[in-house]
Parts: sequence; structure tokens; C-alpha cells
Amino acid sequence: MSKTSIIGAYNTKFGAFVQKNRETGEIKDTKSFYDLLEEAGRGALEDAGISAKEIDGIWIGSCSPSKFINQEHIGPLGLEVAPEDLQFVPTTRTEGACASSSVALYNAAFAIESGRFKRVLVIGIEKMNTLPTPGVTHALACSSFWPDEGAHGMTFPGLFAELAKGYMAHHNYSLEQMQEMFAHISALSYKNGFENPLAHFSKGAPPHRLGLDDPQKILDLPETGKGSNPYIAYPLRLHDCSLVSDGAAALVLAPTDDAKKISSRAVEISGIGMASDRLSEKQRGNLYELTAGKMAVQRSFAEADISIDDVNFAEVHDCFSINQILTTEALGLSKQGQAGFDYINQRFGPDDLCPVNLSGGLKSKGHPVGATGASMHALAYKQLVGEPIGMTPEKKEPEIGVVFNVGGSGATNCVSVLKRIK
Amino acid sequence: MSKTSIIGAYNTKFGAFVQKNRETGEIKDTKSFYDLLEEAGRGALEDAGISAKEIDGIWIGSCSPSKFINQEHIGPLGLEVAPEDLQFVPTTRTEGACASSSVALYNAAFAIESGRFKRVLVIGIEKMNTLPTPGVTHALACSSFWPDEGAHGMTFPGLFAELAKGYMAHHNYSLEQMQEMFAHISALSYKNGFENPLAHFSKGAPPHRLGLDDPQKILDLPETGKGSNPYIAYPLRLHDCSLVSDGAAALVLAPTDDAKKISSRAVEISGIGMASDRLSEKQRGNLYELTAGKMAVQRSFAEADISIDDVNFAEVHDCFSINQILTTEALGLSKQGQAGFDYINQRFGPDDLCPVNLSGGLKSKGHPVGATGASMHALAYKQLVGEPIGMTPEKKEPEIGVVFNVGGSGATNCVSVLKRIK
Repeated sequence: MSKTSIIGAYNTKFGAFVQKNRETGEIKDTKSFYDLLEEAGRGALEDAGISAKEIDGIWIGSCSPSKFINQEHIGPLGLEVAPEDLQFVPTTRTEGACASSSVALYNAAFAIESGRFKRVLVIGIEKMNTLPTPGVTHALACSSFWPDEGAHGMTFPGLFAELAKGYMAHHNYSLEQMQEMFAHISALSYKNGFENPLAHFSKGAPPHRLGLDDPQKILDLPETGKGSNPYIAYPLRLHDCSLVSDGAAALVLAPTDDAKKISSRAVEISGIGMASDRLSEKQRGNLYELTAGKMAVQRSFAEADISIDDVNFAEVHDCFSINQILTTEALGLSKQGQAGFDYINQRFGPDDLCPVNLSGGLKSKGHPVGATGASMHALAYKQLVGEPIGMTPEKKEPEIGVVFNVGGSGATNCVSVLKRIK
Repeated sequence: MSKTSIIGAYNTKFGAFVQKNRETGEIKDTKSFYDLLEEAGRGALEDAGISAKEIDGIWIGSCSPSKFINQEHIGPLGLEVAPEDLQFVPTTRTEGACASSSVALYNAAFAIESGRFKRVLVIGIEKMNTLPTPGVTHALACSSFWPDEGAHGMTFPGLFAELAKGYMAHHNYSLEQMQEMFAHISALSYKNGFENPLAHFSKGAPPHRLGLDDPQKILDLPETGKGSNPYIAYPLRLHDCSLVSDGAAALVLAPTDDAKKISSRAVEISGIGMASDRLSEKQRGNLYELTAGKMAVQRSFAEADISIDDVNFAEVHDCFSINQILTTEALGLSKQGQAGFDYINQRFGPDDLCPVNLSGGLKSKGHPVGATGASMHALAYKQLVGEPIGMTPEKKEPEIGVVFNVGGSGATNCVSVLKRIK
């Protein structure tokens, strides 16, 4: 069986593409869901040097467009990328919370590996800022186990706070220790993100102006007032949380055998690891590690026949600072309970053997939930073909990158090993 | 490449599983989304004689659970079917409006055909009656092209009314002619559905008590008042519309090579036809046929190497009476413009060479939108293994059945050719 390769990618700028009328409260899009979808799809085709006529399948990942913009039935919207050339193409939409578009990518890869599809377009997208904040909070809470969590007022910061508290308790760490870890993680995210021109928080954004690429400055922020770092859900504070962003990213896929022939910029999805855990946190084995996430890592690495030592960079799902710790440990980049200290000790920056979140990650690049998986893969692709957007590993031209995309509070786990094809 | 076979299936009873408090308006579930999902999943495993431990992938199709019950992130809920045995199994949720679970089935089949999965559980589900009617109308309208359709007050009856008007105009048929066609179609649906114990409108339901398996009785119903048949969206009247139902259905899949060995009740998905059209009706080629639907039929029949003459029964997507005409014509069972007259002339009943909607179809069996595709396949499977639920073809023990599931007003089209494996 020939595996699947990425032969082109595109990432829109991430941001809040709306205008808010301060008097009426009305929110108007400056870039709509439809604009973002078309831009990403066309951009990826152009990047791959592929005509839309060659595309024989479209997969779109999106988390909650019916809550955000009253739009369901997302698959056929893929035809809008090039309506004449894409006539009658089969389309699929997947949803897997914040991993919606990694799930799309994997299903597209399975479809290619079945022999039924040759050139596939995958798009990840979310338009979140059309809703006011309480609406966004509610839409996201639907990705929890609603009867036990969302319905009782549990939000996503709250769900990840449970993981942070579980981790603190298991390892017997103090709040001060956790906050020092978190500040170093967020500062590294900001530092990398400032250099990413597509990031929601790229140069000139508030954390840049406040110098928050310095962990001490984050630690020094007051708890209340202007420019503060208030608690969102103890022990998580504002700067531990990812952004509510609008954006899209897209990938063009082909069987690896073809990709080798038609592209000089092919990156193979050499390992796919998917693993689900129960949606309700109460039902999980524990709250101090990503148990299913570790299974996804193991599956992906086994398929690609690599170990973590072979990996030249990782993009991990840092929706909240605690999850950067959990994903870093699940990958085996840090020992259990040690990832935070490793970040404090300056590990995983661009000069590391395995830099983490060179893109700035979800806290700095932004987190348009359904777009995130595709975006992680798109930027990893760009790294591997020598066209990095923003920071790049300093020690070595990368050959192998890993993407670890998490859906919800850990129920969906998608881990990809991406290898440059020489 | 080994194709994919169905080795077990289950369909829950369809209905409105809620209690409404007339004083407060409060709606309480008597069977929840979660109850239906678990019942369907376990039922299919039992029917297949497969232990949950053997399942290595779960695909769930659901249209709009976030609108209906505030639940997104549907994939991992599949683990609830057997939490211990399904630990860490990869899960995918697809959405394709009313074809959500055919899209799930096809993606699951691609995954099996990739060689990555051996035993897969597919579930289709929707819980609609938890919302009051205006909420249901809104949730469904999100499957239109929202900016041009739903946002302007267009509902699904309205969108299919456009197809009915387009068909009337193109063929120059009068309202009286159309209504006679529709009455015969609905009467046949009710007649078949009364015999289906799982149908929302099975024996004893209102259309049964009113004798509405007689087309003349439908035509004689008054336009207003109790027991009337009012216009919902001209020219479509109440009895031209499918039901707002709760329900789920599930299928167990295996590679055909394995299925032949492990099951004496295997049905191959011999042809898969998927084709998308543009979401906005304004952008379609015309409004008197299912252009992309015809392409899906062609693809499915070509892959299975059959013609319509080989088909022993069909389950078609009759969300509104007009769509039973359009799908019947797209399949080639009737000439263009003739399907309605064929129904008037008593074609496609159980005594036909190719009976249509022996299950009662969406108007009588019910239409829990995300469940419908899986349900059509589940009941077709039961027909083909000689265990029909309700009516069965009278002329011949069926060997080949066709399922034609439509998403939205024709943008997603899924056509399957199912063959009994001897």
C-alpha cells in the first residue's frame, strides 16, 4: 500500500476578522467563513501546482459552524473553491472538536489509500468571532460531554483546569511552580508567534508590545485591572489560554508513489495515530496525563518506524498551557512530570534538537478550532519543504516533524509523523 | 482491492421520544441521544455476532446535534457502546446534512479498503424532538446555503417547493396533476410504513387511523381545520413532508474477503456513488432534476457493474414527495417527467419488479436526519439477508438493492448498490 503525501499547503492569516459596532453591539464580518474557505482551498491548489480539475475528493474539517454562523452541510461548500472545475466532486465534512481537520486529513488519507482517490483537497476552517464571547463559550462547551459537563456550566478553560489540578496533585507541585512553568511556556509561544506573519498575535499585537516573550513579565502581570493576567479557571490564567480566532488552512494530498513523481516538494504522512478516550472527564482513567494521546503517539511512531529521537520539530496542541505540558510528555520529549521544568530550563526553543511550536502554537498563532489540525500540518509541511513561515529549527534542516492535535479535553487524539521525501 | 461488506445491522424504533409538559412547555426526553446511540451500536454488534473488542474503528454520522441537544464532538461517544472493550478506538464523526450517515458509511468503507481497519461500527443518529418546532426548522435550515437561503427565512419545505415548482414548470404539469402524483406517493409510503414495526407512523398512528394508505383519502383532506392537509410551502402540503423523528441505526462492516469467511449473512457494498452539487439552489444547473444525484447513480452502478434492471428494490430519499419523483427518475426507474404517473399507475409497490421504499420511507418510517442513511442501509441489509422488517418484494427474493440518500436540497448525493453474497 502506498501511503499518502502532502504536495501543497496554505494557511490564511489567523485573526478576528470582524468589525464590532460599539453602540449597537452588532458584529460584521470583514472576512467571512466562505471567504476563508475559498482562500485556503485556492491557496493550497496553487501551492501544489495542481489544477482544481484534478481534484477528485474534498474533505473539510469544521467544529461547530452551525453554532458560530448557522451553517451546517459544510462538505459541498468545498465546490466553491472552483465551482466549474469541481462539479460533482464527492465531499465529506468531519467534526472532531478541535481536531476536526486532522480527522478530515486522516479520512482523506484512508480514501487515497483505498485507491479510490488520487488528488484530494483537505480544508480546516472555523469562523468564531461572529459570535459574542458568551456564544463562543457555549459553542465550545458543546464539545464537552454536555449532560455532565457543559449543561452544568463547565467551560473548556474549566475542563483543562481539571487536568491542571490533576497534574498538580499527582506530582505534588505548588501553584507557584505551575505558574512558573506556564509563564515559560506562554513566553516561548509568544516569542515564536511574533515571528509568524500569519499568527493572530504576530509582531505588534498586545503581548508583543508588553514584551511578554519574557516569562518574568508574564509572572509580574497584576491579577486585576488593565493589562492584567486574571484567573480564567484556577490555576489557569488569561495568558494560559489560546485565542478565539477566525481562519482556515488547506492541504493537497496524493498517493506517495504519485507524489514522488509529480512533486519536488512532497511530505509523506508516514505515521497516523488516532485514539479516542471517553468524552466525560469523570470516566477517564486519570486527569494527569493524556492516556489516549499516548496511545496515538505510540501508533503513529510505530507506523512510521521512528522514535522521538528522530523528530526534528513538533507542533503540539497548546489550547491551554497545561496541555503543552501533557502533549510534550505524551510525545516522550520530557519525562513524566518534567515537561514544565524542561520549558523553564529553556528546552524546546528554536535552538533545541526538537523545537516545539515554532509557529507560536494555539496561544499565539491562534486557535480557529476546526482549522487548527490542518494549520498544524500546513505549517509543518512548510518547515519540511524548506519554506518555513516564521521560525525554523536552528540546529538542523528538518526531515521529520510531528503534529499532535487534540480534540476537546483529550477525547480525540491525532498524531502524525511527517517525513520529507528526498 | 477487497470491497466492503455489511455483516450486521440494527435500527431503533423511530419516533418522538419526549414528554411535553403542556403547562410549562418543557420537553423531557424519554429516550435520549445517548440512549439511542448505545442501543443502535450494541444492536448492530449483536446482529453481526461480533464482540466489541474486535471493532477497530467507529464512524458516526449526525447532522446537527449541537443545534438539537448542545452536543458536538460526537465521535468519541461511540466508545459508550462498550466502554471497556472499545478503549482507544479511533472515531470519526461526519456531517452531510440528511446524508450524514451515508457519508460516515462511505468513509468507513474507504478506511477498510485502505487495509487499516478490519471491523468497523457505523452509527447514524439524530435526536430532533428535544427542540420545539421553530428550533427544529432553524436547525434544519442551517443545512441550506445560509447567507442566501436560511438567513432569508428559507426553510427545507420551501427549498423542496422550489424543486417542485421547477419540475412543474419544466414539464408543464398542473397543480392538480402534481397533487395526484404526491397523494399516490404518500399513500404508498403510509401503506408500507404501517407494516414496519420500527416506523414512526407504524400501525395505529394517525395516518393509519385515517386510512391514508388510500390516495383518494389524502386528496379529500380539507386544507384547514382538524385532520387537514394544509400547504406547508406551495405546492407541498403536510402529507408531502417527512417527519421530525428521533432515532438511530447502525451497521457493522468488514472487508468482503473476511465477510465471506466469517458471516453467512454478508451484503457487499458493491457500488458507492457520491456526488456533490452547489449548496445554493440558485447556483445549480436547473431545479427540475437531481443533476449531481444522477452522477452518483451512474458512478455507483458503474462500479457495481449493474443497470437499473438488475435492482430488486430501492430505498430512496423521500424527505418531500417531490424528491421521491426526482430520485425515482434519477435512478432510471421512470423516464424523465414520468415518475409521478408511474406511481399513479401503481408502480413500485411490493408487487413491482423493483419496489420503492418498502420501509415506508422518510414520510412514514420517519426522518431523524443523521440516522437516515444508516437506516436505509440497515433495512436494505435486512431485506437482502432474508430478514425483512415489514414489507418485502413479492415477486422475487431480493439479491440486489439500491439506497439513494440525499443531503440538503440535493447538494450531497449518496447512492449504494448492495449485493447479497451467496
